[in-house]
Amino acid sequence: MPATATVPGTSRARSWWGWGYADAHPDDAECAAMGALLPGTLGRPLPVPRVADLRVGRSRVTPPGALAHLVTADPEARAAHAMGKAYRDVIRALRGRPGRIPDLVARPTDDHEVADLLDWAGEHGVAVIPFGGGSSVVGGVEYRGDAHHAVLSLDLTSMNRVLEIDSASRSALIQAGALGPLLEEQLRPHGLTLRHFPQSFEFSTLGGWLATRAGGHYATVHTRIDDFVQSLRVVTPAGTGTSWRLPASGAGPSPDRMFLGSEGTLGVITEAWMRLQERPRYKASASVSFTDFHRALDAVRAIAQSDLAPANCRLLDPGEALLSGASHDGSSVLVLGFESAATRVDGRLAAALDLARAHGGRGEAPAADRDTPADAAVTAWRSAFLRMPYLRDGLARMGAVVETFETAATWERIPALIDTVRTEVGAAALKATGHQATITCRLTHVYPDGAAPYFTVAVAGRPGDEVEIWDDIKAAASDALRRHHASITHHHAVGRDHRPGYDLQRPEPFALALRAAKDALDPRHILNPGALLD
Amino acid sequence: MPATATVPGTSRARSWWGWGYADAHPDDAECAAMGALLPGTLGRPLPVPRVADLRVGRSRVTPPGALAHLVTADPEARAAHAMGKAYRDVIRALRGRPGRIPDLVARPTDDHEVADLLDWAGEHGVAVIPFGGGSSVVGGVEYRGDAHHAVLSLDLTSMNRVLEIDSASRSALIQAGALGPLLEEQLRPHGLTLRHFPQSFEFSTLGGWLATRAGGHYATVHTRIDDFVQSLRVVTPAGTGTSWRLPASGAGPSPDRMFLGSEGTLGVITEAWMRLQERPRYKASASVSFTDFHRALDAVRAIAQSDLAPANCRLLDPGEALLSGASHDGSSVLVLGFESAATRVDGRLAAALDLARAHGGRGEAPAADRDTPADAAVTAWRSAFLRMPYLRDGLARMGAVVETFETAATWERIPALIDTVRTEVGAAALKATGHQATITCRLTHVYPDGAAPYFTVAVAGRPGDEVEIWDDIKAAASDALRRHHASITHHHAVGRDHRPGYDLQRPEPFALALRAAKDALDPRHILNPGALLD
Repeated sequence: MPATATVPGTSRARSWWGWGYADAHPDDAECAAMGALLPGTLGRPLPVPRVADLRVGRSRVTPPGALAHLVTADPEARAAHAMGKAYRDVIRALRGRPGRIPDLVARPTDDHEVADLLDWAGEHGVAVIPFGGGSSVVGGVEYRGDAHHAVLSLDLTSMNRVLEIDSASRSALIQAGALGPLLEEQLRPHGLTLRHFPQSFEFSTLGGWLATRAGGHYATVHTRIDDFVQSLRVVTPAGTGTSWRLPASGAGPSPDRMFLGSEGTLGVITEAWMRLQERPRYKASASVSFTDFHRALDAVRAIAQSDLAPANCRLLDPGEALLSGASHDGSSVLVLGFESAATRVDGRLAAALDLARAHGGRGEAPAADRDTPADAAVTAWRSAFLRMPYLRDGLARMGAVVETFETAATWERIPALIDTVRTEVGAAALKATGHQATITCRLTHVYPDGAAPYFTVAVAGRPGDEVEIWDDIKAAASDALRRHHASITHHHAVGRDHRPGYDLQRPEPFALALRAAKDALDPRHILNPGALLD
Repeated sequence: MPATATVPGTSRARSWWGWGYADAHPDDAECAAMGALLPGTLGRPLPVPRVADLRVGRSRVTPPGALAHLVTADPEARAAHAMGKAYRDVIRALRGRPGRIPDLVARPTDDHEVADLLDWAGEHGVAVIPFGGGSSVVGGVEYRGDAHHAVLSLDLTSMNRVLEIDSASRSALIQAGALGPLLEEQLRPHGLTLRHFPQSFEFSTLGGWLATRAGGHYATVHTRIDDFVQSLRVVTPAGTGTSWRLPASGAGPSPDRMFLGSEGTLGVITEAWMRLQERPRYKASASVSFTDFHRALDAVRAIAQSDLAPANCRLLDPGEALLSGASHDGSSVLVLGFESAATRVDGRLAAALDLARAHGGRGEAPAADRDTPADAAVTAWRSAFLRMPYLRDGLARMGAVVETFETAATWERIPALIDTVRTEVGAAALKATGHQATITCRLTHVYPDGAAPYFTVAVAGRPGDEVEIWDDIKAAASDALRRHHASITHHHAVGRDHRPGYDLQRPEPFALALRAAKDALDPRHILNPGALLD
């Protein structure tokens, strides 16, 4: 198998250590300019790490001849599959201390090959880490510990085709390894779209979205990939199963919902029938600014509890608004967007703006209902959104500790939760670094009964101690979330990094049931050991 | 414990053998008039059965003194808990052959009492059948077989309070044994409503809805109770657990989704935080008639694939329309309803009517957007809807075989599925009875990717053979569903009657996981044995 570092469907090289395309990384001068904005960071950027400098040992296992063409022991490929793309991963690569590098990377092309690889791994005590786009920010795709003889990274990205389209039922059978752009490209000629656009869209796969219950495009109603699943095909060490294609079913607990969010611990999702959308014909968007963040929260709650169902309803606190260029005067900004394939949406936008103004918001609908967002703040925010992970890595090269975390809680807890997180995470960062951290917050998804706040923390680190500093900050954040009964994650999944919070959050009878399911489907415990479960 | 036959929250007696309130049953003359419409039925109705005529033996077990006040061995109470309310149950009662009568009925008042009863039952090999309103139509609340020493019906209806309301997050903590009217009555003073109105609304409980993933009021989008669950409290033989109140979470597979649809086999749901609605202020409804049923299907699909989100979107075939009084000329009728607490809905109704007319429908919006449905066909249908189960029992007393079944499938399968079911169920009924059956169909819930057809069958039986005749007809129906990969149930659950179809539909890896979960949570297999699983 060739060791390819280019992103499937493109000719561009993927960075082995950092976010996204290697050619999109900020250069040294840009890194330095960013670092200058964060007091206490390094004078010059850490060098871009090279695989040649890592100690990548020989593979401890060799698969039989029948599987040999599916695997590679190429150091570059193995290094690129050693970790996800959290700050924790990036800084470990920059400091030359990556996680355990897998012995082999496999790229199966169909279910049978996946099953054969699982059989072989089970027989030889090889841990299998299912790997989609590798964009995990929670330690979801790395091996920790030493309970297994060897580690295989199971890269699904060669299984990336749309196999069948049913226009009547507006759905498609899609292989799990399709990255976002490749998936949408195959749907476009049919006038259809999945419309799942996480920040990682270019570098994450359908299977990864499903296994982690990814949050997507829609800020309200169908906020996550879960609701768009019609049927799943899952290969487990105990056998392969496919749920029936159904618009809905009341026959027992949902089989699909057991595998959604299972993070590769129960089986490998290889295909899914997904519910699609027609491409939107009508769009309207606007931004609203608020002097008082708490009044802005009330406005968002009123909109979330209406049935206006905006596609975009993201509230940026003053820091987020400033960093993304959406405002420069200390205002909070609410970015509202509506879209529909069927009906005009300007009426819904106008109604949402009325609600926002009733809570002290300042903003007007654009004069006409247009195809493209008319509002400069909206455009600024969207562009910054896709650029953010690259900038995070640039700041990491300047020795900064910079990362995000997110949660969800019911509305009555939201104001105190956000205030507490700011205070306690700020205190933890100050204690760990001696520097004042920048902490910003936005609401990414909202519900009638609550919201999903998303936090960004940036502070100068201490050279070499960045991982420990981040772990201290994260522990303070997780503790604040737990005390407010706020989820350890809304859409970043659990992986290994969120295990302490997840273990406290999960009801004990469900933990018993999940462990029992794991024992039944993966009796040798080879699948993604350490994620979700011990 | 007093043996009470009145429905909690009312002073009206519940029928032990038939649907609903005893005083709402059609009298002998009404039964005879209905029977006259179905060729081959009896000349006079079967007598109303009496508990005194049943052989209700002594209880084989006696609980310890500490639990004695929670249980009764009263024959009337035990007979009323022997079965659900399927046609199969009603005719068995009418023929003096009810299912196994439980030894005891328990009415716990809190979680601790539920846990104590489970502990005692586990130690003594007593099967426990969780019982809400007892409206199961799939054999969900009866004991079959003889693997257990004795049988306890665990009636939750004494746990029927709304315990807490959170207005900011528009949600409430509700005990699982609350029947629909009692639940809504406690929410009304707060201007809130769950708006879950299944046909069984008056005679089913929140816990029953959750354990069976009940279909509710909304014909589109949030069609079932599942989406309104914020948190569940479940008492299992292996311990009690409560999921966190969250608007959404991506932390592992959803704990709640494992218990939703588990039909009392994994644990007893005792409380739930539920997402509520404001009471609607704007409503609009209309009916549309179609000469061609298949074109009506196209119209409904177009509406389901728009984002208009009608609350009601029920398509009646000519037989359904005739029986409910919605049309008399052989037309199919689409009943459309919109509602909102936030915004006027006449625009959405008008847009839906445009789509219907584009597919050959004939219908107009009422002149004004009013608070109450303006359309006579809508009113006729709603009133017939609540009366239907009573009429079914009246026909059963005339020796008719009359029952409903429902399913869900993706759109591309719907037309052939409905045609096949009509043909094959008609043939099976003719073969079993020598009579031509009346078979009607409606769509109760619709989705962008499919629909839920609901069938009613009525045919004269052969005295004494009604159960076997129905089982033959049901087997033909289930076989047709299976061949079209249509769910064995959309919202009636699995119970015991749907086990053959469910076992074929359930993916094998999920079956393994579910059995493992059962073994972990209910190691002595006392909970609702035979439902969902062996």
